[in-house]
Amino acid sequence: MKLLITGGAGFVGSRLARTLLDRGTLGGRSIDKMVLTDQAPPRPELCADARVEARTGALLEQCAALKDERFDGVFHLASAVSGECELDFELGLRSNLDTTRALLDGLRAAGNVPRIVFSSSVAVFGPDPAVPLPGIVADDTLPTPQTSYGTHKLICEYLIADYTRKGYIDGRAARLMTVTVRPGRPNAAASSFFSGIIREPLAGEEAICPVSPDVSHPVSSPARTVDGLIAVYEAGRDAFLGRTALNLPALNVTVQQMLDALEQVAGPRARARVRFERDERIARIVANWPHGASAARAARLGLAPEPDFAAIVRQYIADCEASPDATRTLKGLER
Amino acid sequence: MKLLITGGAGFVGSRLARTLLDRGTLGGRSIDKMVLTDQAPPRPELCADARVEARTGALLEQCAALKDERFDGVFHLASAVSGECELDFELGLRSNLDTTRALLDGLRAAGNVPRIVFSSSVAVFGPDPAVPLPGIVADDTLPTPQTSYGTHKLICEYLIADYTRKGYIDGRAARLMTVTVRPGRPNAAASSFFSGIIREPLAGEEAICPVSPDVSHPVSSPARTVDGLIAVYEAGRDAFLGRTALNLPALNVTVQQMLDALEQVAGPRARARVRFERDERIARIVANWPHGASAARAARLGLAPEPDFAAIVRQYIADCEASPDATRTLKGLER
Repeated sequence: MKLLITGGAGFVGSRLARTLLDRGTLGGRSIDKMVLTDQAPPRPELCADARVEARTGALLEQCAALKDERFDGVFHLASAVSGECELDFELGLRSNLDTTRALLDGLRAAGNVPRIVFSSSVAVFGPDPAVPLPGIVADDTLPTPQTSYGTHKLICEYLIADYTRKGYIDGRAARLMTVTVRPGRPNAAASSFFSGIIREPLAGEEAICPVSPDVSHPVSSPARTVDGLIAVYEAGRDAFLGRTALNLPALNVTVQQMLDALEQVAGPRARARVRFERDERIARIVANWPHGASAARAARLGLAPEPDFAAIVRQYIADCEASPDATRTLKGLER
Repeated sequence: MKLLITGGAGFVGSRLARTLLDRGTLGGRSIDKMVLTDQAPPRPELCADARVEARTGALLEQCAALKDERFDGVFHLASAVSGECELDFELGLRSNLDTTRALLDGLRAAGNVPRIVFSSSVAVFGPDPAVPLPGIVADDTLPTPQTSYGTHKLICEYLIADYTRKGYIDGRAARLMTVTVRPGRPNAAASSFFSGIIREPLAGEEAICPVSPDVSHPVSSPARTVDGLIAVYEAGRDAFLGRTALNLPALNVTVQQMLDALEQVAGPRARARVRFERDERIARIVANWPHGASAARAARLGLAPEPDFAAIVRQYIADCEASPDATRTLKGLER
């Protein structure tokens, strides 16, 4: 089978590609070819695989050609992040709305009804000033996004549902929770600190937490997120029926609990490297996000969140240890 | 003030224009100019008003010029109807999604934060096979549209909410119920028969009802619909806050009750002109619509539905009597 992963150089996209290449199959079919599109080139170890073809550049301009390619399956992960979209309204519309629309039209024109998994986001939810958020959002909570990022993700969910209803694609949308712990450097996502307050202390660096310790948030590890995307791809059509979006499993934790887990796994000195310094812009965006999520439909697919945040910290440490950068990335870890 | 009504040659658009021209003011400001756009020219009696300017042609091509016009207010009613959109997917995307997006971008570029009322539809709601519809949809019922028409209306609601949140426009979305009784000929809307089964018998003609008599549906008279659009325009911003769409008031009636009212107002011979002949395509679309709607937020704006369907039949008869066509349109009426 021929697979397309958009955002294939990103953190989740790379991990998904690696996992799928190692498995070798998807939905019972052998993966013969995997195209990774992104604005940056994919990781060299992925490009080294003979099944992988990299396409670097704006996805929007690559969509018309999809007509002739007839991909069997697509994971559409490419997206501008929430912080970027709040700062640049047109970038958000172009990257997250127009590009998805062009992708869907390209896949429709191909005529082979490809299966597509769209990475939506828990950011589709937001408090409605008229109806206070229940705190924990469910699969069927009414979305009232309060960011352009969440708005465009939600709109794409509905587009995918309609293209699917018409029989043009076999579309599924999975709402990703905040993926943590991300490696590397902070990015422009407002949620970036949910990784930074673990990653930086483990590397022996100071981290700034821009919100108060009682902020609660639904998170997921990279591994469980990738497992979720694959399970949604492989699920039977009846798991999606009329409404295609489902919440992926969330571990609902407070910043306080995250730091307790950091201390438990890496010691008190690691924790002491986190300093609280409120950032109003970030705090305002995060305040409009749900405090937690439930995922009943994902549970029916056999998906579950990690048992606790310490497990997520340990997963990050194990990932670091498997990489040549371990000396640097785990400099602050006390054993 | 300078006002734009898109779909200004349509039934609701014409009636809205007439009502506003007669009032002379909107939101306490004098209406100095009213631009009516549509694919067909507006009614001659509207064009005869010195305040009216007609622009005939595709709205999509007129949107870029909005930048320099700086309208104070907009009623965006232009839309391809539900039946058309099911038959022609691309027409629906272009007319109902791309055009609204271009309109919003034009208004945003103007920079004067115009107020816009968008005519959304009760068709945003639909049964989710996984979660049976409660039957009566409320302002905050989770929309799961099962038509492209409903999908695009819902997407535009969310776009308008986000452009408003960003301060580019002062947007409000009102979900219209099925407007009945419409004059003239049947159109391609799947809901067309909700007018036909009253209009045709009153004209002495036979009408075919494509669904069973126990089908229940939320309807509104033309006059109450126009009153609703104006009230939504004039409402304070706080009535809309985070979620901008509200249901306009609905009279929830069965086909049976509509025909009882027809008989009550126009006599048994009028009713006998309605013949039941099931149309699977229409019945399937209608089966996916709500059985009724509530409108708590509209009620807080002082809006209410008609007391009963007989009042709607009488309103249609009074409208016909005021027009030169009365001899033809009311040929089947027994007094």
